[in-house]
Amino acid sequence: MLNRNVETFIGCDKEYDESKLVLFGAPFDSTTSFRPGTRFASKVMRSESFGLETYSPYQDLDLEDTAVFDGGDLELCFGDTQKALKEIETFAKQILDDNKLPVMIGGEHLVTLGAVRAVFQKYPNLHILHFDAHADLREDYLGATLSHATVLHRVWDLVGDNKIFQFGIRSGEKSEFLWAKDHVCMQKFNFNGLHDVVKQLEGKPVYFTLDLDVLDPSIFPGTGTPEAGGVSFMQLIDAIQTISKLQIVGCDINELSPVYDQSGVSTAVANKVLRELILSIDNNLK
Amino acid sequence: MLNRNVETFIGCDKEYDESKLVLFGAPFDSTTSFRPGTRFASKVMRSESFGLETYSPYQDLDLEDTAVFDGGDLELCFGDTQKALKEIETFAKQILDDNKLPVMIGGEHLVTLGAVRAVFQKYPNLHILHFDAHADLREDYLGATLSHATVLHRVWDLVGDNKIFQFGIRSGEKSEFLWAKDHVCMQKFNFNGLHDVVKQLEGKPVYFTLDLDVLDPSIFPGTGTPEAGGVSFMQLIDAIQTISKLQIVGCDINELSPVYDQSGVSTAVANKVLRELILSIDNNLK
Amino acid sequence: MLNRNVETFIGCDKEYDESKLVLFGAPFDSTTSFRPGTRFASKVMRSESFGLETYSPYQDLDLEDTAVFDGGDLELCFGDTQKALKEIETFAKQILDDNKLPVMIGGEHLVTLGAVRAVFQKYPNLHILHFDAHADLREDYLGATLSHATVLHRVWDLVGDNKIFQFGIRSGEKSEFLWAKDHVCMQKFNFNGLHDVVKQLEGKPVYFTLDLDVLDPSIFPGTGTPEAGGVSFMQLIDAIQTISKLQIVGCDINELSPVYDQSGVSTAVANKVLRELILSIDNNLK
Amino acid sequence: MLNRNVETFIGCDKEYDESKLVLFGAPFDSTTSFRPGTRFASKVMRSESFGLETYSPYQDLDLEDTAVFDGGDLELCFGDTQKALKEIETFAKQILDDNKLPVMIGGEHLVTLGAVRAVFQKYPNLHILHFDAHADLREDYLGATLSHATVLHRVWDLVGDNKIFQFGIRSGEKSEFLWAKDHVCMQKFNFNGLHDVVKQLEGKPVYFTLDLDVLDPSIFPGTGTPEAGGVSFMQLIDAIQTISKLQIVGCDINELSPVYDQSGVSTAVANKVLRELILSIDNNLK
Amino acid sequence: MLNRNVETFIGCDKEYDESKLVLFGAPFDSTTSFRPGTRFASKVMRSESFGLETYSPYQDLDLEDTAVFDGGDLELCFGDTQKALKEIETFAKQILDDNKLPVMIGGEHLVTLGAVRAVFQKYPNLHILHFDAHADLREDYLGATLSHATVLHRVWDLVGDNKIFQFGIRSGEKSEFLWAKDHVCMQKFNFNGLHDVVKQLEGKPVYFTLDLDVLDPSIFPGTGTPEAGGVSFMQLIDAIQTISKLQIVGCDINELSPVYDQSGVSTAVANKVLRELILSIDNNLK
Amino acid sequence: MLNRNVETFIGCDKEYDESKLVLFGAPFDSTTSFRPGTRFASKVMRSESFGLETYSPYQDLDLEDTAVFDGGDLELCFGDTQKALKEIETFAKQILDDNKLPVMIGGEHLVTLGAVRAVFQKYPNLHILHFDAHADLREDYLGATLSHATVLHRVWDLVGDNKIFQFGIRSGEKSEFLWAKDHVCMQKFNFNGLHDVVKQLEGKPVYFTLDLDVLDPSIFPGTGTPEAGGVSFMQLIDAIQTISKLQIVGCDINELSPVYDQSGVSTAVANKVLRELILSIDNNLK
Repeated sequence: MLNRNVETFIGCDKEYDESKLVLFGAPFDSTTSFRPGTRFASKVMRSESFGLETYSPYQDLDLEDTAVFDGGDLELCFGDTQKALKEIETFAKQILDDNKLPVMIGGEHLVTLGAVRAVFQKYPNLHILHFDAHADLREDYLGATLSHATVLHRVWDLVGDNKIFQFGIRSGEKSEFLWAKDHVCMQKFNFNGLHDVVKQLEGKPVYFTLDLDVLDPSIFPGTGTPEAGGVSFMQLIDAIQTISKLQIVGCDINELSPVYDQSGVSTAVANKVLRELILSIDNNLK
Repeated sequence: MLNRNVETFIGCDKEYDESKLVLFGAPFDSTTSFRPGTRFASKVMRSESFGLETYSPYQDLDLEDTAVFDGGDLELCFGDTQKALKEIETFAKQILDDNKLPVMIGGEHLVTLGAVRAVFQKYPNLHILHFDAHADLREDYLGATLSHATVLHRVWDLVGDNKIFQFGIRSGEKSEFLWAKDHVCMQKFNFNGLHDVVKQLEGKPVYFTLDLDVLDPSIFPGTGTPEAGGVSFMQLIDAIQTISKLQIVGCDINELSPVYDQSGVSTAVANKVLRELILSIDNNLK
Repeated sequence: MLNRNVETFIGCDKEYDESKLVLFGAPFDSTTSFRPGTRFASKVMRSESFGLETYSPYQDLDLEDTAVFDGGDLELCFGDTQKALKEIETFAKQILDDNKLPVMIGGEHLVTLGAVRAVFQKYPNLHILHFDAHADLREDYLGATLSHATVLHRVWDLVGDNKIFQFGIRSGEKSEFLWAKDHVCMQKFNFNGLHDVVKQLEGKPVYFTLDLDVLDPSIFPGTGTPEAGGVSFMQLIDAIQTISKLQIVGCDINELSPVYDQSGVSTAVANKVLRELILSIDNNLK
Repeated sequence: MLNRNVETFIGCDKEYDESKLVLFGAPFDSTTSFRPGTRFASKVMRSESFGLETYSPYQDLDLEDTAVFDGGDLELCFGDTQKALKEIETFAKQILDDNKLPVMIGGEHLVTLGAVRAVFQKYPNLHILHFDAHADLREDYLGATLSHATVLHRVWDLVGDNKIFQFGIRSGEKSEFLWAKDHVCMQKFNFNGLHDVVKQLEGKPVYFTLDLDVLDPSIFPGTGTPEAGGVSFMQLIDAIQTISKLQIVGCDINELSPVYDQSGVSTAVANKVLRELILSIDNNLK
Repeated sequence: MLNRNVETFIGCDKEYDESKLVLFGAPFDSTTSFRPGTRFASKVMRSESFGLETYSPYQDLDLEDTAVFDGGDLELCFGDTQKALKEIETFAKQILDDNKLPVMIGGEHLVTLGAVRAVFQKYPNLHILHFDAHADLREDYLGATLSHATVLHRVWDLVGDNKIFQFGIRSGEKSEFLWAKDHVCMQKFNFNGLHDVVKQLEGKPVYFTLDLDVLDPSIFPGTGTPEAGGVSFMQLIDAIQTISKLQIVGCDINELSPVYDQSGVSTAVANKVLRELILSIDNNLK
Repeated sequence: MLNRNVETFIGCDKEYDESKLVLFGAPFDSTTSFRPGTRFASKVMRSESFGLETYSPYQDLDLEDTAVFDGGDLELCFGDTQKALKEIETFAKQILDDNKLPVMIGGEHLVTLGAVRAVFQKYPNLHILHFDAHADLREDYLGATLSHATVLHRVWDLVGDNKIFQFGIRSGEKSEFLWAKDHVCMQKFNFNGLHDVVKQLEGKPVYFTLDLDVLDPSIFPGTGTPEAGGVSFMQLIDAIQTISKLQIVGCDINELSPVYDQSGVSTAVANKVLRELILSIDNNLK
């Protein structure tokens, strides 16, 4: 008898029960103010992942040897932000309750808030590691407090001062940079100081949120608000290996908007970054 | 002394006080469930309108001879649908209070609800003329009652039975078509019966909402959910002239999503349709 | 417990055992001589099918009420045509052996040969109904006898004279048109005479192969060799309903090449055509 | 010994001496005011022509049986319009001096003026048959008298009143349409009256200039200023056969701008139109 | 009462009288010999600038605190190069006469000649700082002396030997490189030696012309003639800060051709470069 | 008398007899398993080469001074891999028999096998220098032994152990990397050790095969399987100069797929790389 069509991210085809990591998509971009399209990221990444090798020559590890379940995409309500965030939180909570680690593919950056709410319930001493081109620290944006541009401020509402560590930031309002000085640890432009932060965070529960636009748009043009002057692919891969020693209890990658990169390179990059991230976390759990 | 850069839709450059029609954009697409992008429509239409002639050989009328003010685009909140609709309603109300006629460029089709709310306050006996590929009559969509897929149902909540006249409908859930039989007047696929409806509506206040995807995607591919089997450009132009005898008290065109048509034809079509619509309404007011 | 990600064509999510129709993709385009890319058709069609309604206002039928299993895509060998055709034949044979009807999504048109070989074994009196812009009747092409340009000639090798009925043909070598006069029944440019052919074929087993480029490129630009002067979408939908009375024992649609239509309209058209075809055949089997 | 790479339009590979028609490209678009790109038309048409069959099922004629020489593209000076027109005129004159018929591929429509100047020297009683969406009858455009928007006015400067016959016109300034009434014979929107004009022109030398944007943009989006409401491909093919009885002494097709149609359909359409035009003229010369 | 739609580059919305810098577009590309499209640069840059932050974390300066007036785009004549250059010169002269500094957005590089002519009248000891991939030093190009490929030679006709300083040059004819040795100061490939040149030019009036294709096409693909091997974004930003100490009396950025970069990254880069350039010059004037 | 249209790669327009290098295209991509399209590379490269200068400021050499004949493209059979490889081999053999050096433009990487077979007959002690992102060392791929993913394994079948030197490899199956350790010399990620290899290979016959995807996709997105983390353009140009001292007896560049880079940068890069390669080899032969 024939089997029904199953499509997972390449190499992430284990059963739920035997898995330590659970991959899922959160296709939501309703608050995106400039160019929408991140809702398509998880679907396109899965579809294009068959062009990716499961083996990483960087880490000498193979997705075939990992224990990852791909739960597909959440079906989120567009236009009702509160409702969408709640659905993400509920889904992430289920994964955490089963003692698995949620690996979320956005969507716009706001989806992080849903996952962090779930993780924070389990780990009240949660720290946030944040790679991004944008500070995302506004108090509100065009009158909305829930927005891709305010998400880290909302996360700060939960975790409080000196718990958020940002790297690669190169765009924002002047007021965000000023506010940051008192409340978060921000490294502008690059990953300088990452090793020190990793030392500082050792043993503490860390949620890692990766806005892919931290990458330079030369290698990652497929995003809503590309910001020149970003980090290189190899710098990001190195940084991911650097942080793998941390006790990561949840993570996401977000802000791929495939429609803006007809070449497909951005999706290929996102897929390779996801492979390296999964391999690194999975290996650390062993 | 030099003048600051002003950009209006071509030929719509009169002063507010001397104008009878007020053009404005409502760049909102947060509830779009499939492919977003209609937020860019008004901006791109204005920008490309300098490739359009002001003169219509179809009606032998010229935009240069009309009285239209272009108020630019509203700055709407993404992700908070209630708030965005309120802002549209407020803006349209001001225009109506000044005894002018609002001509709105969407955005997704839900923006119509904001404008209709304002118009309905002034004209409680409001009738709706609706050209579209989709019925847009769902009670809710993925749990949301405010959605591009429910907008005509929400309008029906206001105006009631037998006030909505739909043409060109060729896509929807089975339940929408069933519900329609009891509550609205729906002509599937084409404009058959339009002349009769026009006769029926004569003398009554009519809001005209034009979802451009009523056009066949061969001539209008740049939309979120293209539906083959639509009307031709000339059929739409004829229909617009047919309805110009009505007492139109407000109107909109919506659902252009320029990014999905790299050729620019969809925007050129939207612009020509808007020209014909403005010329037709303006001429009728004389 | 969470479920693994399953992706089927919308509404085609029944179990294999309860299904009468079996949908599958044959992503192969190695002999395409001009512009390749049809290998992506089935994948993209499934992915985009969530923008399609399951209900057809044309036939007042709903995919929800059909019995279709989606078996996903075959993993075919590129560059070894014989091997790929054999795999298609084997797969189709299994479906036929289980007394189900194969509905194949190409791929280039050559994939039809694999399916026809399987169907012909079961139905030696097989007739072929063929909608296409191209005759596909060459004896060989650039030295290859197995090619998208020779596929109907290869089918003729099996079924013989006066078993193949072609409609819509408007491109080919002069020699193909001459050869056709003696061996097949060809209607150039349109569907004239289709009703007569349907009468003639009543009660006989028919394989229906639909090269989507029979459509005019205005509505279907996403194909390798677009040929202006084709039939309209509504003419094709009508033709599909016309042939639904036949005893169709297998069918395919092919030659969608999504990469050549950035607007997505071609994929949406292919999906709607497939919906109408499935609804029509399924309804006839009841 | 190997041969150097020769690239001609498919089937147009005869020697100069044995040819009756001479094909050449005039890649010039410096006066294009909206969207440039027609300079690439001839190059792309040649390159894509290997996807075209040499045989026409419409006329049952084959390019293999014609006598056409393809002289490649002129190397024109961009930015100096007078100079470019002179080079076109000189080249066309040489062809005419050798008693051959020039078939020019634009470029923007202004290139027609260069060819007409040469043809007019040889045929002082020249008549012009003009298919176009635009009247192109302005006296000047943004201060320039030599422009794609003035070209037929410049041609009128040469040939005088009642020598120009326009079909398909659906865009222009009001003043152009008024001026046309006194000086040219203009059929708006379609080909109505073409048979009468052909009768009227029989036996007289005719230059045929075909602005491909006379076609509806649904089938021909790849042009600088697409105008909805145009003629269909089959109407154009029929019109070309209708005029083939005339004594055509020169012709051009222009305004294909391939970059605006990523699907390649516009180029395929232009190529098929050129095939039909060449076959028709060549056949008439026999 | 409502206000008419005003569109300026973000943060450049001061009144003319209170401004020190005047921004304007020169949408001209008639002499572009390879791929046209720079005419769209200024319009698209303004339109996309609302995706840019006004604050620069590189310089800790904000466009909100500058005094820049945006005069919109000149309406230039296409196809008559002399006329277009005269219009640019006249406009720039007016700005200089009002003791303001012209900041021009091209267009192709030839537009620089119009602005330099105006600036040279006011500052006869004018020096030219030129960042570019191309030498642009030809005596003539395809017979034209006014061309994007000759513009620096034409500027040299005005300012004479040893007044032009070029950086980043990596493409040209051999003869250009030879000629350069005697007449200009050329640094190939990069910005080596820029600090020395800045020292040398201190106190002298400098016109700065920035052909954005000096950037590597990895970060700036949207240009007519992309040349691999260019400088990085950060190198360019650093160079702009380096030269800000100079007495810049006019400047331009040119050769963005947005249509060749569907991702929008090139426009975002151009906008960020313009922001940094404006901030740097404005700050120096304080 | 006019000349027929000849199109060669810029500056490669010498007669066959006087040439030392023979350029030709092998447009074949039938085994490409992911995204096809390399078949268009040679055609598009020639067509776009008129945007390239013949002079190299890197090497101070000019294509005008070389002796290169451009034989155009082979007409290869799609879908029959054995046949296509044989045709490439035959063509390359003829060039070698005439004591000229074959310079092949792919096509997918498998075309290298055809050329290497010819070269190996003449030079039994052949060594292979291979720049690539992918190891291409599989024994078979989806059941096929002839594939772009197995090509270097097939070359190894000919030349044997320790004759193949790979650089830049960063993608493959784990088993390929393991196999490589025993049979080839592989440098992962970059060109480290190239100078040593050049020393080692001095005086020996070397075939150089350059898969352009060794470049980082930021500068070369137009390829079937882009792999982030590649070498930069300048690193590749330097490497090409480094190896020019070798006795290169044949070479190819492959895997450009122009359709995936709408900006044209990838083609421009391929053209510049080809220019540098030809200049370097030609200069070494003097």
